[in-house]
Amino acid sequence: MCEANAYFVRNGEEELIMESVDLIEPESDDTWRLVGIFGDRKTIKGRIKQMNLVDHKILFEQ
Amino acid sequence: MCEANAYFVRNGEEELIMESVDLIEPESDDTWRLVGIFGDRKTIKGRIKQMNLVDHKILFEQ
Repeated sequence: MCEANAYFVRNGEEELIMESVDLIEPESDDTWRLVGIFGDRKTIKGRIKQMNLVDHKILFEQ
Repeated sequence: MCEANAYFVRNGEEELIMESVDLIEPESDDTWRLVGIFGDRKTIKGRIKQMNLVDHKILFEQ
């Protein structure tokens, strides 16, 4: 499976927001809807800093 | 490997932009740098419409 984990980067530290994210969609400006492989959902306010698919990481920042 | 293919959605059609994308990073407003698993690079102007990691798809739109 190729889901990724989502992190929020704050002061250089990566805080785990959500594991096993499948879908990422914009909801509005700087707001993203994350949907996990089990259908769980979370809304994140922030900008995408980097997505590293091979490392399964999605990084958000303020 | 969990790289994805990047598409541009125009008039409902998905045009392949780049295969085997590993890294996605913002370059400036609505401009994204894509780096492939072999280090190849491409810059895309557009907004992220959806990322579907399990399906290995990244969709951009104008």
